[in-house]
Order: sequence, then structure tokens, then C-alpha cells
Amino acid sequence: MENCIFCKIIKKEIPCEKVYEDEAALAFLDINPVNIGHTLVVSKKHFENIYDIDEDLVAYLAKIAKKISIALKKMGASGTNITTNNGEVAGQVVLHYHIHIIPRFEGDGLAPWPTRKHKEGEMEETAKKISSML
Amino acid sequence: MENCIFCKIIKKEIPCEKVYEDEAALAFLDINPVNIGHTLVVSKKHFENIYDIDEDLVAYLAKIAKKISIALKKMGASGTNITTNNGEVAGQVVLHYHIHIIPRFEGDGLAPWPTRKHKEGEMEETAKKISSML
Repeated sequence: MENCIFCKIIKKEIPCEKVYEDEAALAFLDINPVNIGHTLVVSKKHFENIYDIDEDLVAYLAKIAKKISIALKKMGASGTNITTNNGEVAGQVVLHYHIHIIPRFEGDGLAPWPTRKHKEGEMEETAKKISSML
Repeated sequence: MENCIFCKIIKKEIPCEKVYEDEAALAFLDINPVNIGHTLVVSKKHFENIYDIDEDLVAYLAKIAKKISIALKKMGASGTNITTNNGEVAGQVVLHYHIHIIPRFEGDGLAPWPTRKHKEGEMEETAKKISSML
């Protein structure tokens, strides 16, 4: 897609530090890593995010994210967060579907988001609503 | 697996607010949601995390996460974060593989983790290391 930075990386118009490549996917380092080793896996075909990407491709890219997580563990990571941000409201900066693989280390200072409690009846009502939309 | 709270939910020994169920997977609401609608997708078979789960199951559960993301969007979410935390260091509380689907809303106040810059040569070196571990 024109003006998509990840499409330009895939077409080799912009360089990247490549970790893995095959016919459908490319994995390369995030230039602004949360931790060193922070890798992105992208679909070579342009999709904006989880809402429009083919489900078979979601599945395929998830397998690659597993492989990269294992590689990062071999290199010394104690754990990993595997994340997709879908929509600008969710922190998606490049609107081309990509998976973040963030290696985690003891004492790296990254904190999970705060959680809340459901109000009376809210949990049951919410589950019913989601279920009815599937 | 004995003493695994998600295994007990799967065996219906502990109740949950169910969103979806099939022969291999169960989706239910997180009791401590980041936002209302925060759903977990789990494998019915016990695996600890991304390191030991079968890759075909990773792929299958990722497809279900997509379906739930779409349902949450139909209900009014503007975006979604889809995350797995692998290892206690990564914030994994229940050591049974699960995907978080967190609906996002304008102004919900959730901020991404801080990023850093690579040192001279560090990016190239890191990409080579990860690549060699694959």
C-alpha cells in the first residue's frame, strides 16, 4: 500500500534489521524497542489490523511469533509479551497488521495496566452481549 | 492440571462468565478487567505458555481472538489489544496459556510502555543473534 512504511520495508525501499523472512511474512527489529530484541512480525500483504486480516494469516503469523519467542528465550529472555495493537486508540502507530514480540527480563520495570472490578451484574451482562455478537 | 485455576474453570469446578466454547478452547471474562469486555481465550488442554504449547493450537486460538475482537468492536470498542504474557516476569499470573483481548475506548487512559533507542551497532548485532537462533 502506498505510503505504508511497512510495505516499503517489505519492498526493500526502506532498510530494516531482518530476523526472518518467507513468502508471506517478514520479521524485523522495532527501531524503538521496549527492550532490546523487540521484534515485529508483519504480513507481506497489507492489512490494516485484526479486523480486516484473513484469519488464516493471523494463525500463520502467530506461529512465527512463537518461534521468535523461543529464539529470544535462547538468547536469555526470561519471558515474553506477544501483542497486537489494533486501531490508533489501542496504540497502533503503523496501520499495517504486525505482532510485537517483547522479550522480558527480571527487573526491567515494565508494569501491567491497572485493572478494575465489575459492578453488580455487569460481568454476566457483558458475557451475554459478547457471546451474542459472535 | 491439578491446582490450575483455568483447568478448574474448564472442568466447571469453578464458574466463569463464558463467552465462547468449543472442543479445544474456552473464552470467558477476566474477573479483573483492564476495560469492561476484557476476555480471555484459553486452550482446554493445559500448556503453561507460548514456549510449550503446540503451534497449531497457538494458531487456532489466535483465530478465536480475532472473532472476539470483532464482537467487541460491534459492541462499541474503538480498538483492541490482543496479548499473551509468557512467564511470570512478563506478568503471567495463571500459568495456563491464555490470550487477553482488551477492548479499547477513546480516553481510557491506558498508556503504552516506554521505548528506548539502540546503541551504535546494537540493532544489527541483535538481529543477527535472533536470526541465528531460529
